[in-house]
Amino acid sequence: MKNIEIIESLQGNTFKFLSDYSQIAVLVDENTVEYCYPLVQKLFPKHSLIEIKSGEEYKNLETCTEIWERLTKLGFDRHSVLLNLGGGVIGDMGGFCASTYKRGIDFVQIPTTLLSQVDASVGGKLGIDFYGFKNHIGLFQEPNQVVICSAFLKTLPDRQMRSGFAEVVKHAFIRDAKHWAEIKSKKINEQDWHKIISHSVQLKYEVVEADPTERNLRKILNFGHTIGHAVESFFLEKRYRKLFHGEAVAIGMIAEAYISFRKNFISGSEYFEIRDYLIQVFGKVEIKASELTSIAELAIHDKKNKEGVILASLLESVGTANYNQEITLDEIKEALQVYEEA
Amino acid sequence: MKNIEIIESLQGNTFKFLSDYSQIAVLVDENTVEYCYPLVQKLFPKHSLIEIKSGEEYKNLETCTEIWERLTKLGFDRHSVLLNLGGGVIGDMGGFCASTYKRGIDFVQIPTTLLSQVDASVGGKLGIDFYGFKNHIGLFQEPNQVVICSAFLKTLPDRQMRSGFAEVVKHAFIRDAKHWAEIKSKKINEQDWHKIISHSVQLKYEVVEADPTERNLRKILNFGHTIGHAVESFFLEKRYRKLFHGEAVAIGMIAEAYISFRKNFISGSEYFEIRDYLIQVFGKVEIKASELTSIAELAIHDKKNKEGVILASLLESVGTANYNQEITLDEIKEALQVYEEA
Repeated sequence: MKNIEIIESLQGNTFKFLSDYSQIAVLVDENTVEYCYPLVQKLFPKHSLIEIKSGEEYKNLETCTEIWERLTKLGFDRHSVLLNLGGGVIGDMGGFCASTYKRGIDFVQIPTTLLSQVDASVGGKLGIDFYGFKNHIGLFQEPNQVVICSAFLKTLPDRQMRSGFAEVVKHAFIRDAKHWAEIKSKKINEQDWHKIISHSVQLKYEVVEADPTERNLRKILNFGHTIGHAVESFFLEKRYRKLFHGEAVAIGMIAEAYISFRKNFISGSEYFEIRDYLIQVFGKVEIKASELTSIAELAIHDKKNKEGVILASLLESVGTANYNQEITLDEIKEALQVYEEA
Repeated sequence: MKNIEIIESLQGNTFKFLSDYSQIAVLVDENTVEYCYPLVQKLFPKHSLIEIKSGEEYKNLETCTEIWERLTKLGFDRHSVLLNLGGGVIGDMGGFCASTYKRGIDFVQIPTTLLSQVDASVGGKLGIDFYGFKNHIGLFQEPNQVVICSAFLKTLPDRQMRSGFAEVVKHAFIRDAKHWAEIKSKKINEQDWHKIISHSVQLKYEVVEADPTERNLRKILNFGHTIGHAVESFFLEKRYRKLFHGEAVAIGMIAEAYISFRKNFISGSEYFEIRDYLIQVFGKVEIKASELTSIAELAIHDKKNKEGVILASLLESVGTANYNQEITLDEIKEALQVYEEA
């Protein structure tokens, strides 16, 4: 895979390519500066640190403005590079800022969460949230280098690991039935992470390479995300009920697997197997009957829609997916209600 | 030239390609909505209007936020299109907003000033001003279609025409000595605009095609702009002394031609010919001795610089240019002082 390195430990020569740049900045948040930066600090040439606040609620234009201002004040020219050390927020936003600073400087993704390692680090989707919508402003741009190291995962809280695991399971659902069989035979804390990361990154890489700008095949990666994003957006506003991305996607996958079952793409027992495994790993989130409509309506704004029709990617079978599948507000509400009653 | 149409009058079928889009918005300012929109309104299918304030001082993140919000509220999906009807500000900022809305929707440039027709409409440079620097945030993205119609020029004030004419002359200086001979034989109001636009667009297209992201050859288009941008930025702050882009570039070309002469690339008589023609067309701007240092220092932030060294494109001869030419703060100050004493 071009420009992607997957390693089990960081070596002295991992970042030797950085010596060609005029200036280097490392983008961190208060967590990654404490837990991840010490593991790599000495492997980077002379550099500046840019620290932002962690969390999806800071993935916005205001934080971009801070980053652009820092790069400007540091006098960064077009031959400089930004290293994004952190999870999806750091990678998406740092990549967006780098790609638009002076019409684009180089950037390197060093994802430190399982979620960003198996998902955000591949495929060049960059962006920020805007007007209440996730990744509403952004662009497609491949990083110049991605360094994925499973050593970063050791300091990760369980809830963060689960969040990334949702994407791992998704990759199996949409493209590899055999891998799903392996995964479901083990609990989350029994998985072989280096192997799992390599498998997920390889799978995503192949899909993205076939369709970089998401015109067709790449849309299958959206399985669980049409409803998942709506769920995530909805709970983003609820101070004490915020969900991690993977937790919302787990609900989205259960709901979209249900719709796949109702459309006779997968069998009832396949749906139940998916549902039970995901609920066993992720637990169950309470959704009130009065909230169903609000959540479903958020799905209307999904970027993959066309002319107001909600288009999802559904399971054609367990191990394959179909994109551009029309689903209705009522189907979303029913699927979430069935989830709630599980 | 791919996706670029240069026409003398607007026809019923000029915009027939728009029928494929789910939704259409036209970006205008208070001038283009009054003078240009009436010429094209009936040629567009059903569309929405987005009106912003005209002027470089509104080419910023706040106006982008307005545009993104309008697109969001209109429910624009990825299959919609933005038509940028106006000068460079509308094209650069509208293109930037379209390229980043939902990670990119299509956009069409319909430049209505001479400057944007011969310059901004070709080459895919998009962006906004930030932190006092011109086009500091942006990206490279080719529009899906460019429609250049000289009929729009008829309502253009003289000062606007002159501003675009600076780029026309620049194209001749850097790439076509014969064209310079033709141009200098006529006053500005005697020029054949359709022919001039076609020549300039073709010339710029060839340069940009050879080097889309400005790694090497494309930098020659920067002749006059290293100092010109510094002059423009400086006067942007001076309420009653604001310069049009071409007016600043004319000063920049005189100053950089002087440096080319001092480095023995062009002769003294060639320099004087360039200086006298440009001063005859553009008049002379007063620059105080006390302002020279501030202006020169603004050139340090030019995007084409590397490691703090100021890199300009200078005339190798009249009709050819060389890029990545190191120039010093003192050379800039001397060149501007000589201009002032002309």
